Amino acid sequence: MRIHEIGGEFGLIERLRGAHAGAAGDGLIVPIGDDAAVLDIPVGHQCVVTTDMLIEGVHFRRDWSDPYSIGWKAVAVNLSDIAAMGASPAFAFVSLALGPLDTVEVLDRLYDGLADALNRYGARLAGGDTNATPDNLVVSVTQTGTVESGTAWTRGGGRVGDVLLVTGTLGDSALGLELLTRHGLAGAEKKSRALVSAHRRPQPRIVAARAAHATGKVRAAMDLSDGLAGDLPKLCAASKCGATVETVRLPVSDELRRVASELGLDPLALALSGGEDLELLLAVAPDDIAEVQAAIESVGVSITRIGEFVKTGMRFLAPDGSEMPAAGQGWDHFSA
Amino acid sequence: MRIHEIGGEFGLIERLRGAHAGAAGDGLIVPIGDDAAVLDIPVGHQCVVTTDMLIEGVHFRRDWSDPYSIGWKAVAVNLSDIAAMGASPAFAFVSLALGPLDTVEVLDRLYDGLADALNRYGARLAGGDTNATPDNLVVSVTQTGTVESGTAWTRGGGRVGDVLLVTGTLGDSALGLELLTRHGLAGAEKKSRALVSAHRRPQPRIVAARAAHATGKVRAAMDLSDGLAGDLPKLCAASKCGATVETVRLPVSDELRRVASELGLDPLALALSGGEDLELLLAVAPDDIAEVQAAIESVGVSITRIGEFVKTGMRFLAPDGSEMPAAGQGWDHFSA
Repeated sequence: MRIHEIGGEFGLIERLRGAHAGAAGDGLIVPIGDDAAVLDIPVGHQCVVTTDMLIEGVHFRRDWSDPYSIGWKAVAVNLSDIAAMGASPAFAFVSLALGPLDTVEVLDRLYDGLADALNRYGARLAGGDTNATPDNLVVSVTQTGTVESGTAWTRGGGRVGDVLLVTGTLGDSALGLELLTRHGLAGAEKKSRALVSAHRRPQPRIVAARAAHATGKVRAAMDLSDGLAGDLPKLCAASKCGATVETVRLPVSDELRRVASELGLDPLALALSGGEDLELLLAVAPDDIAEVQAAIESVGVSITRIGEFVKTGMRFLAPDGSEMPAAGQGWDHFSA
Repeated sequence: MRIHEIGGEFGLIERLRGAHAGAAGDGLIVPIGDDAAVLDIPVGHQCVVTTDMLIEGVHFRRDWSDPYSIGWKAVAVNLSDIAAMGASPAFAFVSLALGPLDTVEVLDRLYDGLADALNRYGARLAGGDTNATPDNLVVSVTQTGTVESGTAWTRGGGRVGDVLLVTGTLGDSALGLELLTRHGLAGAEKKSRALVSAHRRPQPRIVAARAAHATGKVRAAMDLSDGLAGDLPKLCAASKCGATVETVRLPVSDELRRVASELGLDPLALALSGGEDLELLLAVAPDDIAEVQAAIESVGVSITRIGEFVKTGMRFLAPDGSEMPAAGQGWDHFSA
């Protein structure tokens, strides 16, 4: 069904409001359907805001990602930024540029993915903007969150001697993408459903972040979206530290080891340079490691010590203790 | 200069941060450069959030709108929604999909327009996301504001008997667009620089909105972005009223009368159906009209009584008192 058949833009807004947005309540004072949303920020809290845009052909391909997965991921990458601040998710605003092929059915599945990801992590849809375009699909999400005043994590609080921790495993999303590139969706899923899922429907670390935030012991944090080798320098720059990483410690999944071996790829390279992990990178004082680790493990998420902040320089040490050459860079949209 | 020449995405973020974002302060606890922004909402206030996406070829054309104007307008349409809630603008988040032709110079001018519009109305840039795309330029802005708790205007507070007021004049932007369509930029500006400017660099009614909001006497409000004939039914639906509009009262500029006459167009049709006016439509109890009018006029903005809320139906009365046939519809992206 074409979108004009359900009453065009206004019919569409009513449809989305009915299916996903719901009424006022729980901090949403004015919901979808007015000129803007009005949000209540709980007393003693601050408002956290992030925005991320996914573009067809740049961030996803239709033949690899179904509309549900596109919706899920558009929310997940934003929630990952909320997690990186130690905050709780609150409300999402979703702007779409819909291409000529985007039927009502495509849109319904896209919104199902958006809504499921929001619901899964305690967030709600509160607004957006829907447009038709002759070009490719664009999904732009702005996500708000709340955090106890003065306690938001930043990238800038780390000190020399702090230990660097990462949640989960690294490189799974990148290897999932590699499988999709080589084999297409059906072939990739035959090789590894888990890695394809890590790429298409990543899980932001909201619950682990809130558990760690409750300890009050995390000094600096960010989420890994451009690959550890590309992201760690940003944490270092903000904290005015260098870093040493023992690459032998980098957490990789058994699935990644198995498939990387089959494909003749280096698991370490995937863990270092693979993007879109949506894992947390945390800096913690040595005395506080056990407490932060216990908090994160208590919610069923693994946490691994990978290195430490030092005075200057960025060194990735190979298993034999030698320094690896420049370990690659994160993803850059504007590379030559 | 191409964007990869200034260091790609990361160089770009540094450039924007340096030029436009500035440091923390004035309610911005964590500014651009972290995973998300952290905002302080003043005690006794709520947070207002709106988002609007402008797409090249759909909302603007490069040959008619220079990058500065595109940036200005992307902010202005969002600020207009903040005004429609009676709120004060706070922070903007700007996501861009930059096409192959978008050089650093284009981007600098785009951000100059964004920043000038934000500064003009007391808002600041606090975050965003920048991407490269093979397609056309997309500018997605999310704008926050603050409003005294429980006092945000909505579309839903109007009652039968309330008088309908509009700020400024209607139809100027639509006629500016008509001039651009017929004559191109140079030709259109020769015919009327003011109308072209109304289309390319509209002025959101932030100051008038805050002046009217301070009276506490506005019952329902919205901004006119899809044309009065398309927008008024939304105000009516939310307020569960009908409306009667005396079209002879619709405020039109002398410039619009002059140019419409030259072009053989009906000023009334432009005022009724023209989009992107960014004027305020307000519902006020009869006893409070003088107070609200005085507040708005005190900041140098005209305000005109155009009709009233009635029990049911939507009637646009012609100058002779007869009912006009369906007065056209607002803009719909998905019309067949």
